[in-house]
Amino acid sequence: MSFDLLKSLGEMVSTEPDVLEKHACDWSNVNRQRPLAVLRPRSVADISAALRLCHRAGIAVVPQGGLTGLAGGATPQAGQVALSLERLKGVEEIDRDSATITVLAGTPLEVAQKAAAEAGLYLALDIGARGSCQIGGNVATNAGGNHVIRYGMARAQVLGLETVLADGTILTSLTKVMKNNAGYDLNQLFIGSEGTLGVVTRVVLRLHARPRSKSTALIATSGYEATVKLLRRLQNALGDISAFEAMWPDFYRYVTDHPATGIKPMADKHPFYALTEFQGSEPERDGARLEECLGAAIEDGEALDALIAQSEREARSFWTIREGAALDLLPYLINFDVSAPTAQLGALAERTKAALIARWPEGLFFVYGHIGDGNIHLSAWAGDTLEAVAHEMDEIVYGEVRRIGGSISAEHGIGTLKRAYLGHSRSAAEIELMRRIKAALDPKGILNPGKVI
Amino acid sequence: MSFDLLKSLGEMVSTEPDVLEKHACDWSNVNRQRPLAVLRPRSVADISAALRLCHRAGIAVVPQGGLTGLAGGATPQAGQVALSLERLKGVEEIDRDSATITVLAGTPLEVAQKAAAEAGLYLALDIGARGSCQIGGNVATNAGGNHVIRYGMARAQVLGLETVLADGTILTSLTKVMKNNAGYDLNQLFIGSEGTLGVVTRVVLRLHARPRSKSTALIATSGYEATVKLLRRLQNALGDISAFEAMWPDFYRYVTDHPATGIKPMADKHPFYALTEFQGSEPERDGARLEECLGAAIEDGEALDALIAQSEREARSFWTIREGAALDLLPYLINFDVSAPTAQLGALAERTKAALIARWPEGLFFVYGHIGDGNIHLSAWAGDTLEAVAHEMDEIVYGEVRRIGGSISAEHGIGTLKRAYLGHSRSAAEIELMRRIKAALDPKGILNPGKVI
Repeated sequence: MSFDLLKSLGEMVSTEPDVLEKHACDWSNVNRQRPLAVLRPRSVADISAALRLCHRAGIAVVPQGGLTGLAGGATPQAGQVALSLERLKGVEEIDRDSATITVLAGTPLEVAQKAAAEAGLYLALDIGARGSCQIGGNVATNAGGNHVIRYGMARAQVLGLETVLADGTILTSLTKVMKNNAGYDLNQLFIGSEGTLGVVTRVVLRLHARPRSKSTALIATSGYEATVKLLRRLQNALGDISAFEAMWPDFYRYVTDHPATGIKPMADKHPFYALTEFQGSEPERDGARLEECLGAAIEDGEALDALIAQSEREARSFWTIREGAALDLLPYLINFDVSAPTAQLGALAERTKAALIARWPEGLFFVYGHIGDGNIHLSAWAGDTLEAVAHEMDEIVYGEVRRIGGSISAEHGIGTLKRAYLGHSRSAAEIELMRRIKAALDPKGILNPGKVI
Repeated sequence: MSFDLLKSLGEMVSTEPDVLEKHACDWSNVNRQRPLAVLRPRSVADISAALRLCHRAGIAVVPQGGLTGLAGGATPQAGQVALSLERLKGVEEIDRDSATITVLAGTPLEVAQKAAAEAGLYLALDIGARGSCQIGGNVATNAGGNHVIRYGMARAQVLGLETVLADGTILTSLTKVMKNNAGYDLNQLFIGSEGTLGVVTRVVLRLHARPRSKSTALIATSGYEATVKLLRRLQNALGDISAFEAMWPDFYRYVTDHPATGIKPMADKHPFYALTEFQGSEPERDGARLEECLGAAIEDGEALDALIAQSEREARSFWTIREGAALDLLPYLINFDVSAPTAQLGALAERTKAALIARWPEGLFFVYGHIGDGNIHLSAWAGDTLEAVAHEMDEIVYGEVRRIGGSISAEHGIGTLKRAYLGHSRSAAEIELMRRIKAALDPKGILNPGKVI
């Protein structure tokens, strides 16, 4: 490795042990590996210079945002240099008439959300890591979250991108419009490619009108199928609801029984639970409309019980249950993030849980998630260390996903941790084409090698 | 050319003169060219076999849908074979619980819309050519239309695709979920690439809840800036409105004065006009809500007058004005479809019109379109044949678009007719990368050569 070469990049290069340590892993905290150096450029020109040099010298680069990923996508591998976007941050412009925000890639999501709100507009992208994650990382991983059912993934928020290619070329496609069919939409290539095709440096996001009301409800139902019916009823009655989350009963019981949660707003005797959020435009009526719709669902037997949050605080408490922080206190918890058509997701959950319980009768297996998007999370604890169970558990869960034709990663990406299973969800022809795209954009393979494909 | 080779494809091959003539051009009706043969396969396997053969033999193929494009993208060039999707049609499945529809590529858009409606759901994609255009073409051109402001382009409706690559490989990515981050989203490559990277054969589209009401209004405003303010007011008050169209005053006057239109629901003395559609979920209240919002806009001086359609028939009549069929009766009309940030679109329209009038003082120049999406159409008539003015007019219009950093094609695509101007909207680095992608997917260049790049 050519440290002297890297040093020519000047002030942006750090090899301080504490800096290397900070950039050694994403939130998965698996396979920690200090990078050879951390590059912290302050400008797009700096990034271009850094990549040009690494490209020439054949130095592998792992781009890093807020390090909040869970699939190992931003974790360095041996001999790699970390390219951190943390100093390339700031909101550059909010264009009220065009309803867009332009931000540098290292800007934390929450900073952009607040800037949009101050301008009277609404940035629809939202995930739990909003305070730490960065917009560039959100785009590179096509982040999902709780509002996808209404607003779509990160991809749907992106209008324009600036990206630096492997050889240092700056690619500027910073369009601010919904409609631009002048040639291939190259931006789509970089969204969700986990830093393997280019480094996102600037982003134009579309903004929506700010919702004028928000109503939140916790609901008990008779099971998965009734919950899907309830979802479609809510959409028919209220238009596009902004969130719809399902909680299988053992999830609800475990979390609400746990002292870390400390609330149980509704009895835990029901077969199934859901949480919904309705963003409306008539503050004085929207709560009553949601209530009326849920009342009709109870009359028809789709819902068994429902609580409408009477305050933002109560709404937060419902979300606290769904966020299930209590699970994270279990040692050696393993989290899965899979998708399948909504119609088949209930069966996938049941079959997977049955297979896991058969193997680990003493284990705890919790299912919850965004069923309107076809996405569930499964949090599993088998009482043993990760090393002892992780591989076998992956085989079982991803085997069930493969059988049903689902996706092994709904929103968290592939990174390294799911790479061995990519073939469970994608055909040989698809993977071959991914390799062709990778070779076309990064022929020397310096951008985040060892990830995704 | 190897006719004997083609003949080995059997029944799907036609060289009948009337068939060749039917497939000689898209709706632009410019540069008519009979293909060497028309292939009309009935299955995806047929398409794969046809492309495998053409790939081996180096025969250039122009994929064709409903031939409703306006940019020459589906018009054959000398020595090319046309691959028509017209026989590969039909709705294969509607999955109510997952809210998806799966269709073969040759299915007319309107057939899919009706099938979704019969299942109680809503296919949000809609364009004027709905009766003739095909879903495969809609995807290949990333079709836009009047509902983009609420639902996004065709890209936003696509969940899954099956595509046949240049060498005949069938690529199946028929996901039915909103969330799938397992590797690169290859489907994005084909959407909007105008048949140059692959042939779309099957499509999974997401469906929305069916709107329960629709209110339509024709509005007079004091000018472009007031119209943008009105748009944002409507979105703030009503949530995502489903259409917002602007009409510059000479457009409104010409169309409503024309006997082909035969209506003038509002005086033509106003400085600017808009048409809006609000899809809501409360049939008994939504019209009144729109009326109240427009009343407030009139009080604040943003709007000068407003008419709410009292029937579907009246709503259609407002749209008839906006669709401006009277313009099409002008001989040698030239249509432009450009985009720029909403904040700059008014200036772009004024500057372009001024430049055109300076050159053709006797000409007619009409501007209208989807300003919420940053998209306007310009219909121009300079009193002379197309041949005499088209090139010079392109230079003027696309020159103004370039100056403002806009797009020379918002929704119609590049095809052949705008190919010379791609560099006005895209950088050399972008075009170079497009070529790299093209070479990676179609190294022998047999898929729709001469188009886009």
